[in-house]
Amino acid sequence: MTQSAMILLAHGSSDARWRAPFEALEKNLQPRVGKPVVLAFMELSEPSLETRVAELAAQGITQIEILPLFFAAGRHLREDVPGQLEDIAREHPISLRLLDPVGQHPAFVDALVAIVESQVQGL
Amino acid sequence: MTQSAMILLAHGSSDARWRAPFEALEKNLQPRVGKPVVLAFMELSEPSLETRVAELAAQGITQIEILPLFFAAGRHLREDVPGQLEDIAREHPISLRLLDPVGQHPAFVDALVAIVESQVQGL
Repeated sequence: MTQSAMILLAHGSSDARWRAPFEALEKNLQPRVGKPVVLAFMELSEPSLETRVAELAAQGITQIEILPLFFAAGRHLREDVPGQLEDIAREHPISLRLLDPVGQHPAFVDALVAIVESQVQGL
Repeated sequence: MTQSAMILLAHGSSDARWRAPFEALEKNLQPRVGKPVVLAFMELSEPSLETRVAELAAQGITQIEILPLFFAAGRHLREDVPGQLEDIAREHPISLRLLDPVGQHPAFVDALVAIVESQVQGL
């Protein structure tokens, strides 16, 4: 039986305060979704993608979708993350699928438009 | 008389394909907002913040709000961008105000929740 989960993948930063809004998002989502949804960082912050996949595999998860919390796909999402996933797939017998970054989703663009409009009205 | 504008500030990337979704957002917004709204990049991509401020100042703009298209405030928004703005302010007699990153806006978090929920249902 397939047991699925989602990893929210953020960039990571050497600034410790970077993590808080992503952790708030993870916490906000967990009770609203009927599957495990956990946060991982591509670099510089913990937990790493590899750590999260290992944890989920140990829980019996067999399928993970990875949703990048990125505005756009640059070199990280085209090269670095696929490379990380290939390495991880050699260690864990688990299906890993990298989704398009959230920035390409229409709901995301609509939210940005609403935010800009509200800010511009306040000028 | 105050003439105001907004700059959407994205990170920038050495990957040329990085720009397209930000340019689409800029294009989407311009007809919906009654003030100039233009895109700039913090580093690696053009146009830079400095280039955009110079262009807007030449058009008679006296007040610019800068909205970072970032999920969270890390070192870039706490140190690098304020430093860039201080340098730019020495060159141009213009009011520059750095807003909180869009990732801290509730509409943004709601959009992310909706995207995750739609993706999770598709697992």
